[in-house]
Amino acid sequence: MKKPRGRVTLPSEQNFLNETKELMERWGADAIRDSDGTKLDDEIKKLEAKIYTTYFVARGHNDFAAEHMDECQQLYLMSEFNTATAEMLEIDLMKGYFTEQVRPDYLHDPKKYWEVVDRTSGEVVNTADWEVDKETNRVVIAKAVPWHEYTVSFLVYMIWDPTQMYNHITNNWGDKPHEIPFDVRQPHANQYMSSYLKQWLKDNPDTDVVRFTTLFYHFTLVFNNHGKEKFVDWFGYGASVSAAALDAFENEKGYRLRPEDFVDQGYYNSSFRVPTPAYLDYIDFVQHFVAEEAKKLVDLVHESGKEAMMFLGDNWIGTEPYGKYFASIGLDAVVGSVGSGATLRMIADIPDVRYTEGRFLPYFFPDTFYEGNNPVIEANQNWLTARRAILRNPVDRIGYGGYLSLAYKFPEFVSYIEKVTDEFRDIYDKIKGVKPYCGLKVAILNAWGKLRTWQTHMVAHALWYKQIYSYLGVLEALSGAPVDVCFLSFDDVMNDGVPEDVDVIINAGDAGTAFSGGEYWANETLVATIRAWIHNGGGFIGVGEPSAYQYQGHYFQLANVLGVDKELGFSLSTDKYFVTPVNEHFIAADLTRFDFGESMKNIYALSEETEIIEYSDGEVHLSSHSFGAGRAVYIAGLPYSEENTRLLMRALYYAAHKESEFHQWHASNMYCEVHAYPTIKKMAIVNNSMAEQTTLVYDGDGYSRKVTLEPSEIRWEDFSDER
Amino acid sequence: MKKPRGRVTLPSEQNFLNETKELMERWGADAIRDSDGTKLDDEIKKLEAKIYTTYFVARGHNDFAAEHMDECQQLYLMSEFNTATAEMLEIDLMKGYFTEQVRPDYLHDPKKYWEVVDRTSGEVVNTADWEVDKETNRVVIAKAVPWHEYTVSFLVYMIWDPTQMYNHITNNWGDKPHEIPFDVRQPHANQYMSSYLKQWLKDNPDTDVVRFTTLFYHFTLVFNNHGKEKFVDWFGYGASVSAAALDAFENEKGYRLRPEDFVDQGYYNSSFRVPTPAYLDYIDFVQHFVAEEAKKLVDLVHESGKEAMMFLGDNWIGTEPYGKYFASIGLDAVVGSVGSGATLRMIADIPDVRYTEGRFLPYFFPDTFYEGNNPVIEANQNWLTARRAILRNPVDRIGYGGYLSLAYKFPEFVSYIEKVTDEFRDIYDKIKGVKPYCGLKVAILNAWGKLRTWQTHMVAHALWYKQIYSYLGVLEALSGAPVDVCFLSFDDVMNDGVPEDVDVIINAGDAGTAFSGGEYWANETLVATIRAWIHNGGGFIGVGEPSAYQYQGHYFQLANVLGVDKELGFSLSTDKYFVTPVNEHFIAADLTRFDFGESMKNIYALSEETEIIEYSDGEVHLSSHSFGAGRAVYIAGLPYSEENTRLLMRALYYAAHKESEFHQWHASNMYCEVHAYPTIKKMAIVNNSMAEQTTLVYDGDGYSRKVTLEPSEIRWEDFSDER
Ligand SMILES: [Mg+2]
Ligand SMILES: [Mg+2]
Ligand SMILES: [Mg+2]
Repeated sequence: MKKPRGRVTLPSEQNFLNETKELMERWGADAIRDSDGTKLDDEIKKLEAKIYTTYFVARGHNDFAAEHMDECQQLYLMSEFNTATAEMLEIDLMKGYFTEQVRPDYLHDPKKYWEVVDRTSGEVVNTADWEVDKETNRVVIAKAVPWHEYTVSFLVYMIWDPTQMYNHITNNWGDKPHEIPFDVRQPHANQYMSSYLKQWLKDNPDTDVVRFTTLFYHFTLVFNNHGKEKFVDWFGYGASVSAAALDAFENEKGYRLRPEDFVDQGYYNSSFRVPTPAYLDYIDFVQHFVAEEAKKLVDLVHESGKEAMMFLGDNWIGTEPYGKYFASIGLDAVVGSVGSGATLRMIADIPDVRYTEGRFLPYFFPDTFYEGNNPVIEANQNWLTARRAILRNPVDRIGYGGYLSLAYKFPEFVSYIEKVTDEFRDIYDKIKGVKPYCGLKVAILNAWGKLRTWQTHMVAHALWYKQIYSYLGVLEALSGAPVDVCFLSFDDVMNDGVPEDVDVIINAGDAGTAFSGGEYWANETLVATIRAWIHNGGGFIGVGEPSAYQYQGHYFQLANVLGVDKELGFSLSTDKYFVTPVNEHFIAADLTRFDFGESMKNIYALSEETEIIEYSDGEVHLSSHSFGAGRAVYIAGLPYSEENTRLLMRALYYAAHKESEFHQWHASNMYCEVHAYPTIKKMAIVNNSMAEQTTLVYDGDGYSRKVTLEPSEIRWEDFSDER
Repeated sequence: MKKPRGRVTLPSEQNFLNETKELMERWGADAIRDSDGTKLDDEIKKLEAKIYTTYFVARGHNDFAAEHMDECQQLYLMSEFNTATAEMLEIDLMKGYFTEQVRPDYLHDPKKYWEVVDRTSGEVVNTADWEVDKETNRVVIAKAVPWHEYTVSFLVYMIWDPTQMYNHITNNWGDKPHEIPFDVRQPHANQYMSSYLKQWLKDNPDTDVVRFTTLFYHFTLVFNNHGKEKFVDWFGYGASVSAAALDAFENEKGYRLRPEDFVDQGYYNSSFRVPTPAYLDYIDFVQHFVAEEAKKLVDLVHESGKEAMMFLGDNWIGTEPYGKYFASIGLDAVVGSVGSGATLRMIADIPDVRYTEGRFLPYFFPDTFYEGNNPVIEANQNWLTARRAILRNPVDRIGYGGYLSLAYKFPEFVSYIEKVTDEFRDIYDKIKGVKPYCGLKVAILNAWGKLRTWQTHMVAHALWYKQIYSYLGVLEALSGAPVDVCFLSFDDVMNDGVPEDVDVIINAGDAGTAFSGGEYWANETLVATIRAWIHNGGGFIGVGEPSAYQYQGHYFQLANVLGVDKELGFSLSTDKYFVTPVNEHFIAADLTRFDFGESMKNIYALSEETEIIEYSDGEVHLSSHSFGAGRAVYIAGLPYSEENTRLLMRALYYAAHKESEFHQWHASNMYCEVHAYPTIKKMAIVNNSMAEQTTLVYDGDGYSRKVTLEPSEIRWEDFSDER
């Protein structure tokens, strides 16, 4: 039997031809890529595989950049907070910043582009009352109010590309030149990027796929005076701003932005901030510009007969794949890193590209591939996590990155990946384009909606943070669950109502964040629309501090729907009688313990009509409540685990009044799942764990039988509609 | 030796003469009181003791009240929240209320005195758009906005005195008449209360002390439809309102109050709410009126040759002893219940009375005095707790309440109280009027200031609540500590600055409450004044969420002073490098473990200049930070314990830069304390525990020696200034 082949991308490197061939064969790879720091030999480029070549648009061209430093990328930075102890206050702009990365822009008039803010009164200081000392990078305020705090928002030039800076510093690259990022909004830079690409396409005939890494503007990444990360926002539009962009924005939108629109009190419009209309306008403005310019490059690539692929990261700002201009770029493919089911779906669900590719873990670097460590464990975990999501919607390709020669030294790993790649192709061949059985449709409701599909609560591209893991579990659970998922913004609901096919809305997050919604919840249209929808039979699940905004006697503005609210101290004088959990509840039926993660304090039930499911330490952590024909569920937090996936699934079915359908295409054992594909009459019974599992497997009519699965097993079965 | 006598009040009852005499002798009692439910025999009244007689001003006169139901006391109540599902919405006013306690006031025009509020839009509904159905106690809104929530704020008559109602229901008094509270603001009631008292004073020649229980308006206590407590606010002015009071207020203050000024979104101006100017005006208005009317009664008492004593509770609204009109009432004494050191100080520190009396625990009721229980344990705990505070400022008398015959059945208890009363008199005789050594002066800063001296964070008169115990520990620790304590309001600071003699300011509480301060912290005068004061050498201690108000880039508005802030999610993108605790710190020097109670999540250090003292679970819970010549300390929570008292004391000395004075008049053992009285050259070394303790005792020069104390021992020593 011939080895199956395709849908797999291999990294390679110099002087590694034979081993590359061997691994291509064993893993069935049909594409080869270079990585940051590796180059491909000509012999490798001649192999029977697509060749991906990394391409940097706006960095790595220092000859050009150094001659056009006025076309360098810019950023708005905020100084530290400075407390005035007298009327004269000197502010050291660059204090805490990395002088090798940024320097103040004195080409553009500070009095026009900068802002000095009294952070105690909230007022902007009159430009006549401060001066800039360019020699010392200081702002001197002449008439400060003593004991008020002041900040300066100032434009800088970013003279070092953040990704190269990170790699440079991390790997001690010494005197290797700093790559200077230039701004393609500028005339010379714009001209340069086209002409350079045209020539490059001619010069690289072996390249099949131009892997843009990435386009124009890096996510916000600012280092501190010790050359360490100071601020990182994977969604940050900070580096897209410039004096030119501000003028263009005014031209396009009809009003001028302030430095404060970028600096945002020092929070820099983190995706946790409820976005202001001005910031949403700015995002739209940048996305529009980036899409137009990117399309030109993609057209050039296509004219050369190659494909255009975009890496989802680094200089990806403005290309957000769920944004409204993305399709117009005309990319063939997007590739991104897969660290979880949610990140897999973030890539796999991208519309308007011909294919997607997930770069799987572990990365072939010495931090995992060292003697004594077994990289199979990480690979297996990564695969099981991703496979749940792949079974809902597969990426079109998988790949790896790093040093192939390192991985080659671990034969068990090579064998394991051989198995994974075969399993991936098998899944893909069976189900790509086949709609899996979905028991219901969930909408994640927050301030970002569709734009940040599968990207909610994410900090610094999917790192663990104490403040987010109790919410990320919701997305991770859903990424591999037999439900449809969509992302709705508050504006969507206010403008168009809740889509007809949605069964359950989830609002999850800490109070005041874009994910919970903050002041949006004082909007009567929003609140009334959602109440009406639930009352008419909709389901609602609130996690953490849903609909939280202290207003008119409630902290949770949907308290009347949820049947719970949070005690902030104001209603301690009101007796709280409702503290007794129900004996049993559909939602908790399978659970033996609860884990609400960071959990939430001081939640209490409003009346005897609230069904308390978990009560401890004087607080409700899990409850349900009917509202008209609808139901709402409160959950104090939902870190990802098999138990919590089950809890969430039951909560969804309960909220949707679909309890009777819960045991269709279902596995009783929480470590197993059933994915059914009615149109092809196939089902996959999967063991998501690395241990043997026995489970009841329920078919579409709710009939069950016992099945035992090997560790990590996926078992395919055909089924008929007849019994 | 003759038994010492005096300063002790005994409850007595009928048919208990001989035992009363015996206990008077053993406990040295010089006063006898009746209790709720007990009466004194004439023989007892003739004993050589002052006789206290409970006197009710505005209840217990049903013959009068029933004939003047239009002079009954009133309340503003808020209906439940009602969600409109259509344009017509009917609201059942009395839903959830106790019809035996309150009934809607239809004598005064609802269109003038009531308010229907759209709680979704925040708007008041036009009076033309709703009607009252008096038969069914409903309000019908004709043009409701579907899915908006509505409430009705309505005036009721309170037809049952809350304390009598509570006792009546608790003790199953059956058809005993309900005592109807009348409003002395009304003409007949006002006339009646005077004339009745005049006669009563004549009719009760044996009474030496008229124990007002209490005056005119009960604290807010509302029962629910099951006849159980629904809302209780010991500070609540709810029952002082009436149509007449509203009109009088307008007359006096020049503007009219709205129902919302009382209903306050359903929070009813709980003392946790940051008080509005209107509510503060109303408090002032009521206090003024109550003081004027109370003075008339007190004058009558004095004219009769008796003393006037006020019970601190029940109908005490308007008499707040730290309010500005209290002195003008001319009371001889205040008596209140002592459950802690803080409540003892609340009574003992009352200015402008000739004497104060604390009613100690346990109350002589069967819940403690039953076979098999040892009431000595509770008495011993209560005494040790109160003794700390007595050693700072003694009440002038102590007393007990309940059934003396019950206590008499417990000879060990009788002996123990004999010891307590002797010890109390001994302490009193030594130190009354003597200023104890205080190492520094602390100001508790909140929205209430002096008015609520020793009363911060109190719910329902000193019950335990999950949301308060982590703050109450601050007051309890201070109540018996060798420091001066004062209470400052934000308005005080804004108007007059920080008093010169204050060493350390404490701001403790949950965000948004009157105790933390909420929106006050956006006031630039407040913030600048406090920053300046600290920078010039002042100390600041923040507990929980001090100065919390999200504004201009900080959550803690004193973040620059404290060196810490709270992560709400907005600054997750900013790297938090400062996580390493110092090796040792003055504040933690004596501690082996930390207990922050409910503690506080997500506190982080702003820079390397913050001295982190305790860091766990990814959070700072204890830290210090210099600010100019001053210092600030952050504490995540401080439930009362010996360890936390020590922590707070060290934090105070550290913040005040007085570390070198910490070991003056000090006990090394946390279960012991030293109270010094320099003007009389005496010191008390006390063991606050029920076990033997050995401690180093430091004198005023910091010299120490070892001392071993019996359980609960207080040891007096004389000292000279010479060594
Ligand atoms: Mg090729
Ligand atoms: Mg007498
Ligand atoms: Mg100082």
